[in-house]
Amino acid sequence: MSEKIAVLVAGSWGTALASVLAANNNNVSVWTRNEQQAAEINEKHTNEHYLPGSILSDRISATTDMQTAVSGARAVIIVSPSAAARQVARSLKAHFSKDMLVVHAIKGFETETLKRMSTVISEELEVAEGDIAVLSGPSHAEEVVKKCPTTVVVASSNEKAAQAAQGLFMNSYFRVYTNRDLLGVELSGALKNIIALGAGMSDGLGFGDNAKAALLTRGLAEITRAGVEMGANPLTFAGLAGIGDLVVTATSRHSRNWRAGSLLGQGQQLDAVLESMGMVVEGIRTTKAAYAISQKLGVQMPITEVLYGVLFEGRDVRKAVEALMGRDPKTEMEVMPLQTWEQWHS
Amino acid sequence: MSEKIAVLVAGSWGTALASVLAANNNNVSVWTRNEQQAAEINEKHTNEHYLPGSILSDRISATTDMQTAVSGARAVIIVSPSAAARQVARSLKAHFSKDMLVVHAIKGFETETLKRMSTVISEELEVAEGDIAVLSGPSHAEEVVKKCPTTVVVASSNEKAAQAAQGLFMNSYFRVYTNRDLLGVELSGALKNIIALGAGMSDGLGFGDNAKAALLTRGLAEITRAGVEMGANPLTFAGLAGIGDLVVTATSRHSRNWRAGSLLGQGQQLDAVLESMGMVVEGIRTTKAAYAISQKLGVQMPITEVLYGVLFEGRDVRKAVEALMGRDPKTEMEVMPLQTWEQWHS
Repeated sequence: MSEKIAVLVAGSWGTALASVLAANNNNVSVWTRNEQQAAEINEKHTNEHYLPGSILSDRISATTDMQTAVSGARAVIIVSPSAAARQVARSLKAHFSKDMLVVHAIKGFETETLKRMSTVISEELEVAEGDIAVLSGPSHAEEVVKKCPTTVVVASSNEKAAQAAQGLFMNSYFRVYTNRDLLGVELSGALKNIIALGAGMSDGLGFGDNAKAALLTRGLAEITRAGVEMGANPLTFAGLAGIGDLVVTATSRHSRNWRAGSLLGQGQQLDAVLESMGMVVEGIRTTKAAYAISQKLGVQMPITEVLYGVLFEGRDVRKAVEALMGRDPKTEMEVMPLQTWEQWHS
Repeated sequence: MSEKIAVLVAGSWGTALASVLAANNNNVSVWTRNEQQAAEINEKHTNEHYLPGSILSDRISATTDMQTAVSGARAVIIVSPSAAARQVARSLKAHFSKDMLVVHAIKGFETETLKRMSTVISEELEVAEGDIAVLSGPSHAEEVVKKCPTTVVVASSNEKAAQAAQGLFMNSYFRVYTNRDLLGVELSGALKNIIALGAGMSDGLGFGDNAKAALLTRGLAEITRAGVEMGANPLTFAGLAGIGDLVVTATSRHSRNWRAGSLLGQGQQLDAVLESMGMVVEGIRTTKAAYAISQKLGVQMPITEVLYGVLFEGRDVRKAVEALMGRDPKTEMEVMPLQTWEQWHS
């Protein structure tokens, strides 16, 4: 059964998700602010800047008109950069109807308010946060458009919303698990980008696989500790949106966060790195937000603190990463959130 | 203060650990059965077959005589292949004195008995299993001899033994954490090789990073579930010997388990793969042991079962891995050992 689904906006991940929905015989209407990009998608069935070399399904059309994009859609998938999420949701509001399923696939916070994406979207659309679903997990857009086997998780407090989203996206190469822990999936998806940035720096500095594995292990402990403090289920961090996504983001050259970290590790300045990437690097904004959160909650996040120093206080990258490797805990359980795990399960 | 330490035997990891001990100003006596290898280490300060291109410290000497290797040593480090561990410990017995610290760094089981390495060694040396320490973690030998930053964990039920081992190995590039969960560290170190083999197969088949991340996430859940069933602390699997070592083993070309899996994924036969490696691939033996353990305990280990079928029952590798990706759980928590985590913490 063919249905209309709207996807906002046409970045790498939005376009890749549109390709999954099109493969499932939906008619996908992609909204973008960029006239030229809309014309390219409609006429050439490509989106070269974001997904070079990929041919898109002719079930995908693009428009700069929100009304055209959203009217009659069964579901709206919001996949903007985190910095644009509030504005996109606000533009959507006038054309949105409450019977539409809302799914977002954004990994980050609103930096100024430290709000999660589902909070931002629910405020603008005036829908309950609990009815929104988030889609996350280890999923390079480049592989998804090629139909490489991929698994993701869809989380919502509303089980029906999660199942509806699962039904929309699931197919033979794109497997969708559900989870009720919206908070944990949003937090792990956002916070893991910080650790991926750090892993890129370690690689850029020429440290080896052993050092990177140590950083990932400690990094996972740190973001789990923060997540649990904010009310998430620690098990979510051990799942696809946590470890799974962290591994793929920190060990793959497809990853923007890893690449940005790697360039910083090689001694490039932040401005130059951002310019050479030509796309949003969520981990950089997220580092700022997570640093503020760690200060507010009093949670120890040593890797986040070091990266914040490098990115925003001009700290020397080699000295900073060496200092991190040189910290001196005595037992392994210190690096893991033992007490918080116990709290959660007691 | 310079002390004598014995290392049995002179493989990649034994030689790398000898180089750490030598860097810490110990006199290291390495035991090997191979006369030619002993002469090479003593005369050329190299061990080309196992660590090509590395020059070893002249504080490292080698001998084929166990008495010479062990006499007067403060500690004995056992780093043989798992299949040789009982025989090495038996040869050691006549020259062993009870005041020597025993540390092993072996990742595997005794296949016939399904015993862990500390059990095997304690039986042969007639020392309490609780006094033995195990060293494990994300640590490619090739990087350790180059003094790349590395973190490992040393576990023993006897805190003094763990701290003594920590004191022996710890230095500015080789950081040692302690942990009391000997069982968990041994199990995660051994079982993670199965998942690394599977990750190599996925890569060899040409699946992407998304598929590999899914395999690692599900694999970690599976080995944690088995470990907890056997009495390990699930948190150990989230630490250096678990996730940390899994990441490094499954994503690095240095890893023998990954390489063997990759060749199998490319369609090579097991015999040909083993011959071309020229070294022991622990993950293959461990798959057999873990399969037997899963049957005995009634624990679901789907990845282990699939690999067992490919390795020992002639199952087609592509169909087997596709079947694994195609399994159909509905919620994410099914892939994680929620109940067992709860049991542990209640």
